[in-house]
Amino acid sequence: MKIALLGFGVVGSGAYQIITSQPDCGISIKRALVRSLRPAPAEGLFTTDFQEILQDPEIELVAEAMGGLEPAYSYVLAALQAGKHVVTANKLLVCHKFAELTQAAKTAGVQFRYTASAGGGIPWLFNLLRAKRLDEIQAISGAINGTTNFILGNMHKNNLPFSAALQEAQRMGYAEADPSADIDGLDLCRKCALSATLAFSAIVREEDIPTAGIRHITEADIRWAEERNMTCKQVMGSRRQGDSISVYVEPAFLHADMLEANLPIRSSIAILEGKYVGRLGFFGAGAGTLPTGMNMMQDVMDILHQVGRLHCFTEPARVDNSLLQHTYYIRGEADIPEAQERGDGWLLTKPLPVAQMHAMAREAEKAGHPLFFASIAQE
Amino acid sequence: MKIALLGFGVVGSGAYQIITSQPDCGISIKRALVRSLRPAPAEGLFTTDFQEILQDPEIELVAEAMGGLEPAYSYVLAALQAGKHVVTANKLLVCHKFAELTQAAKTAGVQFRYTASAGGGIPWLFNLLRAKRLDEIQAISGAINGTTNFILGNMHKNNLPFSAALQEAQRMGYAEADPSADIDGLDLCRKCALSATLAFSAIVREEDIPTAGIRHITEADIRWAEERNMTCKQVMGSRRQGDSISVYVEPAFLHADMLEANLPIRSSIAILEGKYVGRLGFFGAGAGTLPTGMNMMQDVMDILHQVGRLHCFTEPARVDNSLLQHTYYIRGEADIPEAQERGDGWLLTKPLPVAQMHAMAREAEKAGHPLFFASIAQE
Repeated sequence: MKIALLGFGVVGSGAYQIITSQPDCGISIKRALVRSLRPAPAEGLFTTDFQEILQDPEIELVAEAMGGLEPAYSYVLAALQAGKHVVTANKLLVCHKFAELTQAAKTAGVQFRYTASAGGGIPWLFNLLRAKRLDEIQAISGAINGTTNFILGNMHKNNLPFSAALQEAQRMGYAEADPSADIDGLDLCRKCALSATLAFSAIVREEDIPTAGIRHITEADIRWAEERNMTCKQVMGSRRQGDSISVYVEPAFLHADMLEANLPIRSSIAILEGKYVGRLGFFGAGAGTLPTGMNMMQDVMDILHQVGRLHCFTEPARVDNSLLQHTYYIRGEADIPEAQERGDGWLLTKPLPVAQMHAMAREAEKAGHPLFFASIAQE
Repeated sequence: MKIALLGFGVVGSGAYQIITSQPDCGISIKRALVRSLRPAPAEGLFTTDFQEILQDPEIELVAEAMGGLEPAYSYVLAALQAGKHVVTANKLLVCHKFAELTQAAKTAGVQFRYTASAGGGIPWLFNLLRAKRLDEIQAISGAINGTTNFILGNMHKNNLPFSAALQEAQRMGYAEADPSADIDGLDLCRKCALSATLAFSAIVREEDIPTAGIRHITEADIRWAEERNMTCKQVMGSRRQGDSISVYVEPAFLHADMLEANLPIRSSIAILEGKYVGRLGFFGAGAGTLPTGMNMMQDVMDILHQVGRLHCFTEPARVDNSLLQHTYYIRGEADIPEAQERGDGWLLTKPLPVAQMHAMAREAEKAGHPLFFASIAQE
């Protein structure tokens, strides 16, 4: 099968390297869309004109790794409408346009896959959908934001303050120059929206998910967790609750005897809980050229070999976080009349509705005295 | 697709429960072979005559969950030769007859799958083969023997002596009345042989794998590990070494900051290392009615949906353990001239060839003064 790449950056070049190293895999990369022409690894590979790809009848599949909403959305939609399969590593695109793109694929009778858009090299979304064929997903959870895994891991391991750990992550290419999407939880929120949408067969939007990040974490918070044998991770979680689901993204202090607490610094983890299969977990490199390129090309192999079907959901999910309660650690001025325990600048709440905690933190942020908070998790 | 179960015990009844709870999954269980007739959950389900299954043209697939080599081998071979697909949860069968059964499937143009035979409910073998489509597996490892995971976990958590932890495992149904296949490492050896065969596309036999178990472990060994922040697991490992592979099954003391060290007591874990994707790990329930039944029925779904291809290897693997060295903890009378450290009844070796350590332990066993040994593993 001849395919085209849209974008030849971190993910696209990784995909190219993998496919060219496997000459018998049945896939060849005919064209790659780049912003400006430069010497290509093969003659005629690069083009700056999407129409050359769209109108090439030999190209059966387009693999999008440009990132961003536009022009990615227009290109992907056009490719689907032209009868080409699409795989993408673009979580922003999949998260915002899931219904539109899966509908377009359905109408055109082609496939649309996006495993690499949540979890880097981990075959998380693939296995989630595979499990669902015979099981009822009760819950999903995970720490699949590579940037915060790296920052928090470094704060724990090397006793770095947040600012130094962030700079180190930026220096190593794990964090963007503007790190807000990662450290405020938005990146994980999008991955959570997509994971929950697939798990529960209904559209979960970013705005359905109470989201808090690690921007205000201090060394004192890390020390507090360590003194109690806990590790801080930025986590997502979603659970079936009768007819509704609960869903959140927030920092969590995980007890050391939880598997997730001992994740290597550069790894991500995601877990599903099936009615029959129980807890199934997946971990590996959550980002990076080759792992993410690999996950995208495994999607291409699945389409080539007709593995799996198109998953198309358009109904919104019923989200209800009112029943879900967590015990929270809070640093900052929080108006909590009844605390379990109070210390120097921190307190530990009694179990508190997730929605209430997140709303309180947003208010505090607006009022100019931001909080750091983390849920307490034990096996 | 109409299918038949061979065996209606732990795994078979789990598979039945899952399929009957999913009336739209496209699979229905027409017959189930049992040793003696008893009231069945559906009329006409049970039969004691394999020929009724073999000669029923409506039955396209046979799911074998009887265990043991015979009559399972004869039945499975006959089913393949009659043009029926086969899935099995029987590791003894797959491990001993891999070449014969995959060849028979190839000749008959049908599928033969065995994901549930190593790892219970974990989609380990499925994902290993999926990864291999575009990657070169460098190594595999894992702790996928549920019995020793349970026994060792209980020794650590509840300070039980080995004999009491074993009895508890037997009482809970995690260990057989004759526990030797589990506690001497043979069960894990078979899972390792099968995993390594698939990873490296060449037949790895049980007798290629130096295998040691936990029969002689004492509370003192567990305490030794705990004092050094380590956890004991029964592990398998295999690694590409140039044109050869190394492979072993042995107890290991894993440092607490390794993910594997913090596995819940009832879980199993398996990890692959790909040239491109890096380390990918899978964990979940390593045994049990519903998880194992689920993995077997997911194989059936894959065949129904034509996912994946038949993997057929007949060449023996080149196994060479001479280059692989581990640092070992040894309790007992070991003839080690140069030790790193010696204590009361134990010593810590310098790095030692795996083959040498296992040979020394076998000699000591023969001479009537058995050793316990464990490799030391750190991230």
